[in-house]
Amino acid sequence: MHALVTGGAGFIGSHLCDRLLALGYRVTAIDNLHLGRMRNIDHLMARPDFHFQQLDMLDREGMDQLVAADRPDAVFHLAANSDIAAGNANAELDLQLNQLTTTTLLAIMRKYEIGRLFFASTSAVFGEAEGNIHENHGPLRPISLYGASKLAAEAYLSVYALSFGIKTLVLRFPNVVGERSTHGAIYDFINRLKADPTRLQVLGNGRQTKPYLYVGDLVDAILLAWDKAPGAYEVFHASGIGETSVRDIAEIVVSKVAAGAAIEYGSEDRGWLGDVPRFSYDISRLVTLGWSPKRKSTEAVELAVERILANGF
Amino acid sequence: MHALVTGGAGFIGSHLCDRLLALGYRVTAIDNLHLGRMRNIDHLMARPDFHFQQLDMLDREGMDQLVAADRPDAVFHLAANSDIAAGNANAELDLQLNQLTTTTLLAIMRKYEIGRLFFASTSAVFGEAEGNIHENHGPLRPISLYGASKLAAEAYLSVYALSFGIKTLVLRFPNVVGERSTHGAIYDFINRLKADPTRLQVLGNGRQTKPYLYVGDLVDAILLAWDKAPGAYEVFHASGIGETSVRDIAEIVVSKVAAGAAIEYGSEDRGWLGDVPRFSYDISRLVTLGWSPKRKSTEAVELAVERILANGF
Repeated sequence: MHALVTGGAGFIGSHLCDRLLALGYRVTAIDNLHLGRMRNIDHLMARPDFHFQQLDMLDREGMDQLVAADRPDAVFHLAANSDIAAGNANAELDLQLNQLTTTTLLAIMRKYEIGRLFFASTSAVFGEAEGNIHENHGPLRPISLYGASKLAAEAYLSVYALSFGIKTLVLRFPNVVGERSTHGAIYDFINRLKADPTRLQVLGNGRQTKPYLYVGDLVDAILLAWDKAPGAYEVFHASGIGETSVRDIAEIVVSKVAAGAAIEYGSEDRGWLGDVPRFSYDISRLVTLGWSPKRKSTEAVELAVERILANGF
Repeated sequence: MHALVTGGAGFIGSHLCDRLLALGYRVTAIDNLHLGRMRNIDHLMARPDFHFQQLDMLDREGMDQLVAADRPDAVFHLAANSDIAAGNANAELDLQLNQLTTTTLLAIMRKYEIGRLFFASTSAVFGEAEGNIHENHGPLRPISLYGASKLAAEAYLSVYALSFGIKTLVLRFPNVVGERSTHGAIYDFINRLKADPTRLQVLGNGRQTKPYLYVGDLVDAILLAWDKAPGAYEVFHASGIGETSVRDIAEIVVSKVAAGAAIEYGSEDRGWLGDVPRFSYDISRLVTLGWSPKRKSTEAVELAVERILANGF
């Protein structure tokens, strides 16, 4: 099998490349290096079964040429702006990088009859929905342009899957942590403490509580659903088990980076516009397929901090 | 009140202009005249409270200049490609005309602090969902690019309403019939019978059954919800009452245009790729506000055929 991984030098994309290669796939990775970094894939560059090309997916002609020459059996589309706050600051960013990359890819896959697609979606499609959110939950009312752009991409995926024959798996990612991450609370806290080891200032009151998933457990979920989900258009929710507050994260990072640093909280119940303070997924569909994360939420955070401190971001 | 109506020379847009003017609004209408036609608004052109400008909403600079000069209190956004079959034949059409018109408009409304928006959405966002479909129904799995582009537009509307302060009303249109329509079964059948009054060939087996709504009843629903829906982001379903099959429509058109013409049916259960053969809305939210259509589905079809034959399309 020959896979094209978009965003292949990114946080989750590079982990997926590692695992696809270990499973015997031949992998072509592309990345515009907007958030992705070469050092995430430096260890793969010498392999004969791995090929990397710096390419912007909005370069339609370049994408067409790549797919025409490369003819993958399947595409794993993880290229995106994953920084929600950055996307709200520049209203074109998520539309371009998350949605129009997807619609361009779909048109090219249809043209060259590439029959299988994985898409990285997000819990942000649901906005502030409450309860344990099932894959079929409605309504979907995103509150961030990031969530909107991913929901918009899903809308087109549905059509290409159900009417145009591209078998598609969507996994709506939760909060994912691990080495090679490019933003988020762990990333921010480590950087702030390295700048000033005496104190850590936290956006918001720190009471935002979410389940976190270690990136390796997420890749397990992707590959299991890829093998076992039979339908033309399949959507799954993956999530960490248990919950971890921003306060917990701050304390874990302080204990490992700068024990004794003072932690200072704000008063808001969320960190930025479009942040969802509390969120919970129903993951029973994925559990029925045989998946469960190896680490609970707080263990995932601890492992992520340890790996980042050992290996760099 | 000063309203900007996009798609104001179109089928539903021109009826809405008529009614807004009757209610005392000052109206600016824009249309690229892709599906809209000047003769739909010829009767308004001499009014001092009506202004028309031919403008393509994808002309971002032209849109910016118009809104900067015109400063409407509210925008009714009906500009769209509404021809589902045409949208599946050209994969860029719906993305451009239905979605990117909307995201461009939203950015401009935000820039000039225009605080209220109406958006014309569609039952096609639900694909082949079954049962009486409530506004909060999930999942949303469109099977046409038309449905995808409207769902994608809704995704961005949600963010601009809930996070950026543009109070928004979405009405998901059902099958709407009436004079000034530009496509659909009634339109096709009348044109075919005018070309050959001896026979009428019908795409599909004619058993597709849907509720049809007369355009005047739809405009009632828009204006009632506009006045009475209090939330920052409100979504409503409007629908005809009862159902009418394509066979019923064929027989009504034949009886009024070319009595005695032979009707010939195909064997497929739908007319074109992306057509949904059967569809039903839960309209209780709109009924609770005080709306009900004045004509049942088959009466709406009969009235539409009569008005079209009397006035032209």
